[in-house]
Amino acid sequence: MTESTAQELARGVLSGDVRRASRLMRLIDDQAPVATEALKLLFPKTGRAWIIGVTGSPGAGKSTLTDRLITAFRAQGKTVGVIAVDPTSPFTGGAILGDRIRMQGHATDPGVFIRSLATRGNLGGLSRATGDCLRVMDAMGRDVIIVETVGVGQDEIDIAQLAHTTVVVLVPGMGDDIQAIKAGILEVADVFVVNKADLDGADRVVRELRANLELRHAIKAPPLDHDAHHRMVLAKAEGKAVEVPAGPPEWEPPIQKVISAKGTGVDELLGAIERHQRFLVDTGEKATREQTRAMTQFLTLLRDRLLRAGLERLERERGNLSDVARRIAERRADPYALADELAGEPAVGNSKG
Amino acid sequence: MTESTAQELARGVLSGDVRRASRLMRLIDDQAPVATEALKLLFPKTGRAWIIGVTGSPGAGKSTLTDRLITAFRAQGKTVGVIAVDPTSPFTGGAILGDRIRMQGHATDPGVFIRSLATRGNLGGLSRATGDCLRVMDAMGRDVIIVETVGVGQDEIDIAQLAHTTVVVLVPGMGDDIQAIKAGILEVADVFVVNKADLDGADRVVRELRANLELRHAIKAPPLDHDAHHRMVLAKAEGKAVEVPAGPPEWEPPIQKVISAKGTGVDELLGAIERHQRFLVDTGEKATREQTRAMTQFLTLLRDRLLRAGLERLERERGNLSDVARRIAERRADPYALADELAGEPAVGNSKG
Repeated sequence: MTESTAQELARGVLSGDVRRASRLMRLIDDQAPVATEALKLLFPKTGRAWIIGVTGSPGAGKSTLTDRLITAFRAQGKTVGVIAVDPTSPFTGGAILGDRIRMQGHATDPGVFIRSLATRGNLGGLSRATGDCLRVMDAMGRDVIIVETVGVGQDEIDIAQLAHTTVVVLVPGMGDDIQAIKAGILEVADVFVVNKADLDGADRVVRELRANLELRHAIKAPPLDHDAHHRMVLAKAEGKAVEVPAGPPEWEPPIQKVISAKGTGVDELLGAIERHQRFLVDTGEKATREQTRAMTQFLTLLRDRLLRAGLERLERERGNLSDVARRIAERRADPYALADELAGEPAVGNSKG
Repeated sequence: MTESTAQELARGVLSGDVRRASRLMRLIDDQAPVATEALKLLFPKTGRAWIIGVTGSPGAGKSTLTDRLITAFRAQGKTVGVIAVDPTSPFTGGAILGDRIRMQGHATDPGVFIRSLATRGNLGGLSRATGDCLRVMDAMGRDVIIVETVGVGQDEIDIAQLAHTTVVVLVPGMGDDIQAIKAGILEVADVFVVNKADLDGADRVVRELRANLELRHAIKAPPLDHDAHHRMVLAKAEGKAVEVPAGPPEWEPPIQKVISAKGTGVDELLGAIERHQRFLVDTGEKATREQTRAMTQFLTLLRDRLLRAGLERLERERGNLSDVARRIAERRADPYALADELAGEPAVGNSKG
């Protein structure tokens, strides 16, 4: 039954059936086993779409920009998928970004498929769900998939790295914290957009970006080979300190001024994205990114599965998680020893599970 | 050797030795095994500190507010620890928030211990590191520990939930996206601060918050018992959809207007925090939070250990992670089946590892 439903879902998605695709995405969101089965069936059929990440500070006007990009790609006759990753909570439900885009007139266009993903649970479940939903839109045959995220926090940076081309959107006149936040996403940028470029300070932002890029050139480590690149991703997954290379070493991220509200600079932005696409294909860097994305997605998937299995083992061997938590809170159980034990590592030191 | 070093570190921390504590935090950041050993030794000695989370939108003036709180607690003769969680990347190094606070004149006060934690790797490693560093400052005997985070993204929300009292800082006149971002942190707020209250629109923010709180009252689910609460945390860890309860059901989060730059409203804020502290103790809600925190921290810890063990098994059985990623990228390996296999679940469906 499940099996046949998974095949039904997969067939529907492959035939571009939007209803079935939406249903599968909901099942992915709910962690339904049938979703995994369907994804297994779809996986071999994926890898065709060009994935563009649009990320940036809050209030940078990402949704309006995404809307402009959709219109531009549609004008080229390309089909578009959009995944709007909302930092909203399960409580309020996450459809704000998605709705905002949807409201802007693409609702009736069958060539545009927009879905919102809300923050679901913790421990990075969001990037897993985003990766899976990307696969669904990819398998549907969408030419371009835009992933819109608020570029703050490691989750969002991980999600940005699911893209082939990451567009980082900045605006003039944000608070000081923004400096800190931008720092986290500068390295994943393939194309910079200085949005609301008619505001004061736009040129200052451009200058700051130029300076930052030159600084990076000055101190950049030698280009990484594929394995080094993958070792880095692995190190990151293990939470070790790593120097994130600034994208493909030879690519100089262009800085494009845009006024999304008026559409100014959008064609130039499209040109920059297409240049980056050609660059990735011509240099073979695309393959590296595919492998990095495969690794990131696999690590996220693996972590989720391992946790679920580990918790089942905990329940069997140590009883109810609530009781274990209570014992830990009362300092009657040692979380570190317990974790080592469940991970199959010998509990060392004078510690009690 | 390692053992004795762990004991050295633990002894140093327990005697309040700042140098040893800093060293242990660096070792935690580097995932050094000796750090885990030291944490095991310290764990039974923790649980005394009052942990205050300060979180909010970028540009909300959290650092200035934190600085004011430090001064106020010091005036009460309390020792203070501060963990500034920076969304900066390993590349630029993460000390911006911490430095900003440190610069504000507490550098010479031995009663104030400030450390920055940069975003380290992905898959939620940051909240694990934050939890461990909290434990170190707790074991040092700090009366109050302030954790400052940018309240965007699930990582930050998880970190906010490490606190006994979570202060959510908002400011007037932020962009639309802020609405979406605020939504994610509204539910974890025990106290709201409307900062920069001398700016236009401060009253509007207060009204919006009141309306949101009333709305929540209207649709709030019945109070959760401990186990239900824990089931919710577990569901979150597994990435399932859950309704996050708005803190202790009976507690009505006060909304405090503050002008950090001038210190206006800071005493009132302190009063609100102390009222919340008494509330948690008197209602026994403190115990629930301790257990929730214990569970969250344990799940994060467990996930890290499981991933490391799983990757070692992968290397043994399937070879180099880079090669596996290459096979996945070339659609010659199925990441879903592989993850199931490594998690010890039978690989179902017509899938090839």
